[in-house]
Amino acid sequence: MVCTMKRETGVDLGRLFSPRSIAVAGASSSPGKPGRLVLENLKGSTARLYAVHPRHREVLGVPAFPDVAALPEVVDLLVVAVGAVQTVPIVRAARERGVPFVIALAGGFAEAGAEGCALQDELVRLLESVESTASRAPTRLLGPNTLGVQVPGSGLDTIFVEHATEALTPGGVAVISQSGSVAVEALGAAARHRFPLRAFAGLGNAIDLKSAEFIDFFSRDGETGTICVYLEHLGEGRPLLRAARDASRRLPVFFLKAGRTAAGAAAAASHTGRLAGSDRVVDGALRQFGIQRVRDDEALLDAARAVTFARIPRGNRVAIITPAGGYGVMGMDYIEATAGVGALQPAVLGDSTKKELARVCLPFAAIANPVDLTAGVDDESFDRAVRILLRDPGVDILLIMAFLAPAGLSEGLIGRIGRAVSESERSVLVFCRSGERTEEYCRAFTDAGVAAYDSLSRTIEAARVLVTRGEIEGKNGARGSAGELARTPVNRPGDFLATWLPQFSSGDGRQPTEADTKALLGAYGIAVPRSLLLSPENAPDPDSLHFATIPAPWAVKVVSPRILHKTEAGAVRLGVTRENLGEILRDLRARFPEEDILVEEMIRDISVEMIAGALRDPDLGPSLMLGAGGTLAELYRDVTFRLVPASPGDIGEMMEELALSPLLRGYRGIVADREALRECLLALSGLAEAMGDRLAELDVNPLVYAGDRWIALDAKVVLAPS
Amino acid sequence: MVCTMKRETGVDLGRLFSPRSIAVAGASSSPGKPGRLVLENLKGSTARLYAVHPRHREVLGVPAFPDVAALPEVVDLLVVAVGAVQTVPIVRAARERGVPFVIALAGGFAEAGAEGCALQDELVRLLESVESTASRAPTRLLGPNTLGVQVPGSGLDTIFVEHATEALTPGGVAVISQSGSVAVEALGAAARHRFPLRAFAGLGNAIDLKSAEFIDFFSRDGETGTICVYLEHLGEGRPLLRAARDASRRLPVFFLKAGRTAAGAAAAASHTGRLAGSDRVVDGALRQFGIQRVRDDEALLDAARAVTFARIPRGNRVAIITPAGGYGVMGMDYIEATAGVGALQPAVLGDSTKKELARVCLPFAAIANPVDLTAGVDDESFDRAVRILLRDPGVDILLIMAFLAPAGLSEGLIGRIGRAVSESERSVLVFCRSGERTEEYCRAFTDAGVAAYDSLSRTIEAARVLVTRGEIEGKNGARGSAGELARTPVNRPGDFLATWLPQFSSGDGRQPTEADTKALLGAYGIAVPRSLLLSPENAPDPDSLHFATIPAPWAVKVVSPRILHKTEAGAVRLGVTRENLGEILRDLRARFPEEDILVEEMIRDISVEMIAGALRDPDLGPSLMLGAGGTLAELYRDVTFRLVPASPGDIGEMMEELALSPLLRGYRGIVADREALRECLLALSGLAEAMGDRLAELDVNPLVYAGDRWIALDAKVVLAPS
Repeated sequence: MVCTMKRETGVDLGRLFSPRSIAVAGASSSPGKPGRLVLENLKGSTARLYAVHPRHREVLGVPAFPDVAALPEVVDLLVVAVGAVQTVPIVRAARERGVPFVIALAGGFAEAGAEGCALQDELVRLLESVESTASRAPTRLLGPNTLGVQVPGSGLDTIFVEHATEALTPGGVAVISQSGSVAVEALGAAARHRFPLRAFAGLGNAIDLKSAEFIDFFSRDGETGTICVYLEHLGEGRPLLRAARDASRRLPVFFLKAGRTAAGAAAAASHTGRLAGSDRVVDGALRQFGIQRVRDDEALLDAARAVTFARIPRGNRVAIITPAGGYGVMGMDYIEATAGVGALQPAVLGDSTKKELARVCLPFAAIANPVDLTAGVDDESFDRAVRILLRDPGVDILLIMAFLAPAGLSEGLIGRIGRAVSESERSVLVFCRSGERTEEYCRAFTDAGVAAYDSLSRTIEAARVLVTRGEIEGKNGARGSAGELARTPVNRPGDFLATWLPQFSSGDGRQPTEADTKALLGAYGIAVPRSLLLSPENAPDPDSLHFATIPAPWAVKVVSPRILHKTEAGAVRLGVTRENLGEILRDLRARFPEEDILVEEMIRDISVEMIAGALRDPDLGPSLMLGAGGTLAELYRDVTFRLVPASPGDIGEMMEELALSPLLRGYRGIVADREALRECLLALSGLAEAMGDRLAELDVNPLVYAGDRWIALDAKVVLAPS
Repeated sequence: MVCTMKRETGVDLGRLFSPRSIAVAGASSSPGKPGRLVLENLKGSTARLYAVHPRHREVLGVPAFPDVAALPEVVDLLVVAVGAVQTVPIVRAARERGVPFVIALAGGFAEAGAEGCALQDELVRLLESVESTASRAPTRLLGPNTLGVQVPGSGLDTIFVEHATEALTPGGVAVISQSGSVAVEALGAAARHRFPLRAFAGLGNAIDLKSAEFIDFFSRDGETGTICVYLEHLGEGRPLLRAARDASRRLPVFFLKAGRTAAGAAAAASHTGRLAGSDRVVDGALRQFGIQRVRDDEALLDAARAVTFARIPRGNRVAIITPAGGYGVMGMDYIEATAGVGALQPAVLGDSTKKELARVCLPFAAIANPVDLTAGVDDESFDRAVRILLRDPGVDILLIMAFLAPAGLSEGLIGRIGRAVSESERSVLVFCRSGERTEEYCRAFTDAGVAAYDSLSRTIEAARVLVTRGEIEGKNGARGSAGELARTPVNRPGDFLATWLPQFSSGDGRQPTEADTKALLGAYGIAVPRSLLLSPENAPDPDSLHFATIPAPWAVKVVSPRILHKTEAGAVRLGVTRENLGEILRDLRARFPEEDILVEEMIRDISVEMIAGALRDPDLGPSLMLGAGGTLAELYRDVTFRLVPASPGDIGEMMEELALSPLLRGYRGIVADREALRECLLALSGLAEAMGDRLAELDVNPLVYAGDRWIALDAKVVLAPS
């Protein structure tokens, strides 16, 4: 069901989150009604508050007026807490009165079938049509089908189900969520940790105000330090990513994108398509745009607390200090097991650090990383040891294990650590455990301005978040354009494509063959084996062929849109010599009388097999892939994606992300030209961009390094209908 | 520093955990002294309690006696709470009195340098020497340097630091820990979840009582349901694994082995050695012996709660039911991302299940997996939907997301779910969230007999634990001998080894060459390429060689213990033909005048490249490796280990564990003989066993499938000094 969405327009959302006046339509005194819950919430607000009620002069002590037109002022915000059908005329009235912001709480719109969809369309039309009169400022609508907004401290809270209120403290984390229930549960969990919330915004059906605008607003409002976004769909596409990238240049941006398994991956025709399953395109795109991805709400909130309370480190070297040696070892196990984005490494303590530590630690303390203070430690020496480690330039992140069970340790240690951290430039995380008092102590650390977690694995994850953010900020500093979609400096022979594509536009659904695809790649500067194509009609007698320009041995392949897996169909013969060429051509011709036959030079001295490709993601558009190639490509899934056009820097990151990246840096004497591979990928990126909507999937598998160049040994493109 | 350990003897530990009488040596009334803390703890015990004090007649109201000899009875348990030096004579007195169990709390023994080590030796000698008189039953000692034992409910508790007491409920989980501080923190964390503890035992320096005896005891005491072991070293070696395997046949056994990074892996001479880093040998051995490994204490306690409260499922098909759709999607994301041991898969709901669900759910509920009840659900329909899913034979594990924020849900749902679960045979886990009340509700679920977690990722991990346990129990049922070290039915040409090994025993440190290694493999029935070895002294003129029995082309390699990486040294030439053989041999001879040269047949039509190997783990002895081979073996680390001798079943599991396992089942037309590979591995296992202490490392890389057999293309053995 396609429901219309109002077009986006830029607007300052300040009055939505800091309204001077609010009216509640559907205000009610009946217990359990949303209109009552909302009104009760908002009575704590600092804004002037009005109720809209057809009969009453006041509701719960709030002055009431019969309709929006009758309100004594044009309120900044109208909260509509009535059913779907009644919502429409009230929004119309708000628009006519010139109310700048409306929150439509009711469900029963597009999410609820055909009738609801019609109602939603009506809502969209009235927002647009009235707006087009241009006589008044536009009315912006949040929802419908939303819990609305919450701003701790100011009393702005339209959430009409049981939820955390008091426990969320005013702070710098903005939460934008496509799902109300996820946000309620997540913020409820967050409240246990004295979570510093700037504001929550529930998008609901998002017919007007969408993620991108909220991201943009929070990134510039001067009050937000971190943006967390929960998404179930990426339908906003690249504009959303661009808004998030721009925000990421100023502050950390985290996306929790649920629904990681890309539908239809199993049905894809190409390796690239199948390898894009589990939404690796999204993974790659988010990295490209400087957005950090997390796996669940716990991770989202943990990440937000990490960047809120800990400094962003310059590197990934972690030192651990602990009064319990076993936990130090477990922590180091985790650190050494990290790989890929945000990988950590153990810090190597400086000699002077070790000498100083030896002076303040007990005789049997372990002066190494992890620093094991032993259970005999007291607050004073723990504090001094922490301060020594905070001065070591070889430590990027200090992980303090704060267990207060040892007799010499007291709650006073929390304040001491807080002071030491505040006086240092170093990044610090605390793993805190203390039986029944764990939560209390974690909160005390928060109050002392230190990020504390009660789980070792989550503390390590927080360290990875910090390191990743540091990498993003480093890239922003270094090239000033993290995630910028560069214009690829590649020769784009548009003329070739202009004649090539129409061959496959006749509507008969004919797809390019391997030979067609290789001709296209060749035109884009990607080397392919020298070859001769023998068509069924005009092929000369094989025995009379000399293949003078192509040295033996040869690869002989039947190329046909009707054969999907050539090797398995027995349509490929390798290592064909002058002696057996005639026989093999006759055999293949007999078995495949109507297909073209490709005679190619055999490429020898292959040192590395990669796979490269491109596909069109339904939400994010053309995307580029690079990975470990050959037969095992789909077993190891050592692949990575970026959106097209990819910059040289993006492609460099793709090469680094692969498990086989050492191969591209000269592993065990294997030589492969990184720069030439980058050129190949830039060419593919340019090709994918030039193909526009016609690109469905493009596979080069394998793309091999042989001798001194990268060559596309096999290739296939799948076109979308023109 | 090598400190002696008392030899192991079997004994019933019943009196240690249920003593009828206890004496505390070093009992004290001074605040903060261990002797006071222990006495105070034990005053809550049901046992008769005595103090040992040189002067007082009573301490804290407990009758005191001047020494052990003066105690009015031979107590079941003596707790020694004095310093290291004073501990020795008290243990001697206990031994002389015939006290069956002593716990020596004091540190200051082997962990504290040379003096302590001498004290520990003295302790060991006195335990052994007095025992050897055989006039009395042996005295068994726990410690020294331990927190001793804790048994909730009975008041037995010798832990002399701040720790959880009340909150740990009597139950079925036995915790055995090498580290006191880890146990204290872990049990403190566990106490928040009403953790059902059978008993805690801290091993300390373990000079007498060790992990294996505790595991054996708890597995048979009729009170224990689950055994959790925290280890920092595996010095007990195979006897420990055997005890754990025997226990695992009766109940779940979890090991948390800290220190996963094997020291010295980087210095290993072989692929096998380097690939064994990150203690993959331990991973493989634990699987082989039916022991489940976890990564940290949180995971250990989560796992224990899962098997305590949830039934063991027969399969891995998980259904999710949730009132918040977004969490259902996140849960399914996690399930689909699982791989390897304990991998989960989404359950496919039966048609009748769907029909029944449609009757009890709201119109907009999603009747699929995950079942999204929507926030409009009430207790009654939630309960009914749970019961419907519990009847679906296609569901092995039901994951219930219990968020009580929706207006229609109440705390009563917890009891309803508890009753539904207790009336079902199905495995159930709960992911529970409810803001500030989350912990309270999780405890209520525990009281209702349901395993509940407040983190989605940890709930999923608990499901994996259950599935893995189910697999272990299935294996126990199927072959009755999970982890049994089978005698391998392989022909063991001991005579060959008896003449082969002494060649490398002369003390000159000479190591076998590739040719030597291949000769050994050949004798053990592993195919190697046909070859001719040309030694520098007696080689015929290359030009006169005909290699009549070995068809061209050939691989020509310099074999020498002085060349570690042949290819990189330019000492390998492949595809050598009759035309260029003479030239190549002359070139190699000129560059390597003193080395042997191996002329081998080139193996063609290679479909699969594996790596196989063996090594001696310092704690666990000879171990077998199988993995993805070739150049990339060390990049992908797709390898798995088992202890030698490995059974055919073990090798089957090794093949299944590899990411490339589909290759061995006929992937994309690639054929490789699984049974023949199993035979190869059995032969290697037999060889590794036969080599005994001489085996250091053995590499077969690659082991290729070509034509119709597995062939060792390259191989190297590294011997330990004889």
